[in-house]
Amino acid sequence: MKSDELFALLRRRGYLWPSAEIYGGAQGLYDYGPLGHALKRRLEEAWSAWFVGLSDDYHEIEPADILPEAVVRASGHLENFTDPEVTCDSCLTAFRADTILEKVRPEGVDGLTFEAIGGLLREHRIACPRCGKPTLSVPRPFNLMFGVDLGVTGKERGYLAPETAQASYLAFSRMYEVGRKAMPLGIAVVGRAYRNEIAPRQVLFRMRAFTQAELQIFFDPASFAPPLEAVASERLPILGVAAREAGAETPEWVTASALVSERGLPAFYVFHLAHTFRFYRDVLGYPAESIRLFEKSATERAFYNRIQFDVEVHLESLGGYKELGALHYRGDYDLTRHAEGSGKDLQVLVAPDRRIVPHVLELTFGVDRNLWALADTGLTTEGERTLWRLSRCLAPWSVAVFPLLKKEHRERALEVVARLRDAGIRATYDAAGSIGKRYARMDEVGTPYCVTVDGETLDPANANFGTVTLRERDSRAQERVAIEALVGQLGGRFAPPRPPASYDAGPSAA
Amino acid sequence: MKSDELFALLRRRGYLWPSAEIYGGAQGLYDYGPLGHALKRRLEEAWSAWFVGLSDDYHEIEPADILPEAVVRASGHLENFTDPEVTCDSCLTAFRADTILEKVRPEGVDGLTFEAIGGLLREHRIACPRCGKPTLSVPRPFNLMFGVDLGVTGKERGYLAPETAQASYLAFSRMYEVGRKAMPLGIAVVGRAYRNEIAPRQVLFRMRAFTQAELQIFFDPASFAPPLEAVASERLPILGVAAREAGAETPEWVTASALVSERGLPAFYVFHLAHTFRFYRDVLGYPAESIRLFEKSATERAFYNRIQFDVEVHLESLGGYKELGALHYRGDYDLTRHAEGSGKDLQVLVAPDRRIVPHVLELTFGVDRNLWALADTGLTTEGERTLWRLSRCLAPWSVAVFPLLKKEHRERALEVVARLRDAGIRATYDAAGSIGKRYARMDEVGTPYCVTVDGETLDPANANFGTVTLRERDSRAQERVAIEALVGQLGGRFAPPRPPASYDAGPSAA
Repeated sequence: MKSDELFALLRRRGYLWPSAEIYGGAQGLYDYGPLGHALKRRLEEAWSAWFVGLSDDYHEIEPADILPEAVVRASGHLENFTDPEVTCDSCLTAFRADTILEKVRPEGVDGLTFEAIGGLLREHRIACPRCGKPTLSVPRPFNLMFGVDLGVTGKERGYLAPETAQASYLAFSRMYEVGRKAMPLGIAVVGRAYRNEIAPRQVLFRMRAFTQAELQIFFDPASFAPPLEAVASERLPILGVAAREAGAETPEWVTASALVSERGLPAFYVFHLAHTFRFYRDVLGYPAESIRLFEKSATERAFYNRIQFDVEVHLESLGGYKELGALHYRGDYDLTRHAEGSGKDLQVLVAPDRRIVPHVLELTFGVDRNLWALADTGLTTEGERTLWRLSRCLAPWSVAVFPLLKKEHRERALEVVARLRDAGIRATYDAAGSIGKRYARMDEVGTPYCVTVDGETLDPANANFGTVTLRERDSRAQERVAIEALVGQLGGRFAPPRPPASYDAGPSAA
Repeated sequence: MKSDELFALLRRRGYLWPSAEIYGGAQGLYDYGPLGHALKRRLEEAWSAWFVGLSDDYHEIEPADILPEAVVRASGHLENFTDPEVTCDSCLTAFRADTILEKVRPEGVDGLTFEAIGGLLREHRIACPRCGKPTLSVPRPFNLMFGVDLGVTGKERGYLAPETAQASYLAFSRMYEVGRKAMPLGIAVVGRAYRNEIAPRQVLFRMRAFTQAELQIFFDPASFAPPLEAVASERLPILGVAAREAGAETPEWVTASALVSERGLPAFYVFHLAHTFRFYRDVLGYPAESIRLFEKSATERAFYNRIQFDVEVHLESLGGYKELGALHYRGDYDLTRHAEGSGKDLQVLVAPDRRIVPHVLELTFGVDRNLWALADTGLTTEGERTLWRLSRCLAPWSVAVFPLLKKEHRERALEVVARLRDAGIRATYDAAGSIGKRYARMDEVGTPYCVTVDGETLDPANANFGTVTLRERDSRAQERVAIEALVGQLGGRFAPPRPPASYDAGPSAA
């Protein structure tokens, strides 16, 4: 399915639509409808369960999403969080330089100077894509942050958080105090980030307000040693810089231990990379062969990132591999900048005679992008039926309950719904249309189980008295199950998986 | 406990702290730490389970929180979402007029003209509370919305949502199409709202970024008849306008049916009012005698509100009753305004020959305020111990698992944690300090159950082999429970309660 077809489908089914649709929509802003919201929430919960679950010393917080100017000055966003932009002097349309140069330079403009970008525009005699006139401006930096005035005087300036990470850096010293002064210390945030994109596009891939799930792990590089053994033999689909330079586009499968012993990556990095791959493959359910871990070179990554692999998944709707998340080893850049900016000493004592600025490993995950990617990779057609092979933990509804006959079986079916809900199972009731239509509807939205109450359920003389038909989505297998046994049988199946083993932080410094 | 004591306690324990604390904090912005975030999330889930659970035709969505200017122009926020503000011409400090007049007019300035407010300032010769000089300006309207520039040109203006409600009004026609064109149709949003408060104060009570949970119910007033029977005999703590005018401050207990038959309130309003009261009392666990349903008079409520009761709870920390939520019967104001603003016909066909603009009943709930109120009313001291009597569904941790001895019992205790988590139970592991200290820590954060693994658990020769000690928070009662039986015994106890019965919408109009 192409991007606009997939969007039309998701829109028609009420997953999402452009914000303020009755006013003609708002560029780069989308609203999630009931199914979209439920799926997004499940995705966020699955991310938290997995990544916060990696260690009892990883915690989730919920910061405000407006940052004072001093914060974004220190972080570098005020100066550097820009995209090169060109405006047509005739029709006044603004464009991103990389978009406008897409055909002549498909690899993008990262790392190019403004002069070099201007040179490409002149060299290829690029005209305005909208009005066709040769009146494009020189490229200039456009800051992507949304600024707001705080208070009455207008002298205090704030910025909508361009990423959730900054709030975690600001929270570090408080969290370190509240906790037991031990590292590693992980601070996770699932929250909104805002970017004034010059040209929002590709629906959920370049939005002006979007949701990130990020984990910042603060650690002492001399002692950070999560248990690599747990994932040492895991094979990962690596597309390294050397292979890329040799022209490769498909990844090679390398074990986690080889990444450490042969490619020299730190064990703490590989530990988290392997768990990240498992999350995409086992929890989200992307086909393993559609995932690649794409290493960024020194010129491609931000200067403070020492190691960066992007998690990319091949998406039919967008015609190629797309970045859905990343792991950044940021060194001590962030806390050093905020120590300078705030005047507060952010060093911590890691040994009686050793104080350091903690290093940061950042795991970042685009919630909206992954929601799109799940739809892209998961929605399949099998003969007559459309099926969304969603992981059980991600399905908006875990169980759908049907009365075979709308009137006669309604009461008992509603009782089953209430019983499931009381046990914390997300159950929905559907009485509209034939049973076949209801199965089809539930297959389309990925509901793993359907339960039908029928005449036999209610008939004390029947051997199936007190039982219902339980139908599994993928296999379409059906069995009779006693209502009494439903919760016991289904109960544990929808909790988001946790990683195989969590690990403890090192000993307290105190 | 006073407000600053309670805040100091919550801050020390890592529930919340001022945003950008290392930069000296950001006025009116707070970050939630791990416990605060967990409690807030539980509170949001409890609200959704209860109110969205009132009907299968109530749905939760997740809209973007930036609104185009046309939207806030139509809604009236651009013109009217203002507070009267006065600035001291000497020290340049800005004040809210109602704050500065608090001593001479404790009931606030709602409904007063700017001239009248200016008259009061002159009459009482109010000086600047900060510098003491008699140089306060005349009062002027200050718009509380945060504006942002969208896109490169700066010509497109957006506003951070001042309330979540507007997004639901914008979504109505899409939701009506996606659904089965039936009313009532409920659209719920749990999301951030933003207000550029002149003088943020009282911690979580007047914030610049805060979380609202709101349900907008769209209906045909001629046919909206939820089953009042379910709550007819419920007694509600009403403080009506007439009683208030007669000087009453404490509520009288009136049955839901009497509110309809004797006071002439619409049954649909009373149905939701009664369920709201139940939610505050039974789900959140506020003492019934500390709640009152405070009727606003025609001059106190916004002009488009036909009926308004605020839900108020008496808070020691803030020295009186505080508004934590409200029910607004807004008539057809909202959809009428957006039909005018967007040019889109928002009428719906409710009978073959009848088209109407749906009416709206709004249920609104301040998530942050309620978190504060739960701490205020729930944190109690019993002899030596501090106890937070949190509802089981709200506790950040449902079960804490302790090894009696840190080394010897660790492995088995972690297995118990994993087993509970696999069943979707929020379990934490705590091995620090004596068992008594661990109980105390868990009592303070409201954990309903503690489980201890000890020598008997591991000793095949002991009668208690394979069992653990299960301890209940409030009673401190302890019993031995088989590990195998833990999930079965505890499993169903933490799901947020749902209302006694949900109801169906009326027949489809199609």
